[in-house]
Amino acid sequence: MEKERLEKQIDFILEADKEKNIIRQTHLSGNGRRENDAEHAWHMAIMVYLLKEYANEEIDVAKAMLMALIHDIVEIDAGDTYAYDLKGRETKKMREEQAAERIFGLLPENQGEELKNLFQEYEASETPEARFVRAMDNFQPLLLNNSNDGRDWREHEIGKQQVMKRHITNTKSGSNIIWECAKKIIEENVRNGNIKDD
Amino acid sequence: MEKERLEKQIDFILEADKEKNIIRQTHLSGNGRRENDAEHAWHMAIMVYLLKEYANEEIDVAKAMLMALIHDIVEIDAGDTYAYDLKGRETKKMREEQAAERIFGLLPENQGEELKNLFQEYEASETPEARFVRAMDNFQPLLLNNSNDGRDWREHEIGKQQVMKRHITNTKSGSNIIWECAKKIIEENVRNGNIKDD
Repeated sequence: MEKERLEKQIDFILEADKEKNIIRQTHLSGNGRRENDAEHAWHMAIMVYLLKEYANEEIDVAKAMLMALIHDIVEIDAGDTYAYDLKGRETKKMREEQAAERIFGLLPENQGEELKNLFQEYEASETPEARFVRAMDNFQPLLLNNSNDGRDWREHEIGKQQVMKRHITNTKSGSNIIWECAKKIIEENVRNGNIKDD
Repeated sequence: MEKERLEKQIDFILEADKEKNIIRQTHLSGNGRRENDAEHAWHMAIMVYLLKEYANEEIDVAKAMLMALIHDIVEIDAGDTYAYDLKGRETKKMREEQAAERIFGLLPENQGEELKNLFQEYEASETPEARFVRAMDNFQPLLLNNSNDGRDWREHEIGKQQVMKRHITNTKSGSNIIWECAKKIIEENVRNGNIKDD
């Protein structure tokens, strides 16, 4: 009985390993290579812990860290959808829900349900933890991108309205203080011409 | 006041980004590229959560997850020391302690002390959390290596005595059940000739 349970857990752990091959648009600081989903999630979970004092609402830190760690696992099947890819975002929800069924379904039932619920809670953005994790999901690439002189914004010719709208929706809902910091960074990159002033 | 604190936190977050460039000996499953420290830590933190029911002693899961996430940050300065590199291991402790001072010192004092203490607690292996995280630190590459038909053991010509000793010291102290599973995997790889029967 116990063995079967551990075998399922190991199956999931080895499946999750594939998240290290899902490549994002963001480049590592120091104009490095493009980042993968697993290291992005690692970075976010540490940020959840360090920046928790700025959350708009009280959060369960352990829950928020775990949410950050698993929030992109569905991309093993569904792929990464770039923040400003409007066409890709239309089918994102359906693709990711199918992936959640398959991947979390590898786990013993109680753990699979738990992680699937946590992923869906993140997607719905209706709890303090989901809102704060989403703020980190947006603030983390902003910091990397800013450290690379806005390279990713320039390459994708992103405009101020898009970036502002995204951060007002996602970052501000989780943390007003982090949003104020993000806004300053965005405005500076608009002044420098890294973000188009549209 | 608040701004200065957030600036220090951001400095640390950007410094931590460099952990994504510290390359380990272990290869990703599917005979992939070599793994980096950040994605290894991400994998371990998820394993801490999923496998916590097998810990020998009761653990504070949030503390253990955070410990897993930050346990290799010192390698940004000190580099990765391969488990079976005996010469490198002689100077490992000193190199890592200097790195801890510098890197955690970037944070606001209370957070820097907290993470440095957590890192030192991990190194000392004297608490239930440290022992369980260390078990994950050893079980995670074992799973990847086994999924690649023991490639890393073969390339480094590792012998059974070394592997067994390492897992008895590190994995068994954290979890007898995980150790039993690790032992079976090791014995199978000895039978297959992936690990030298010395």
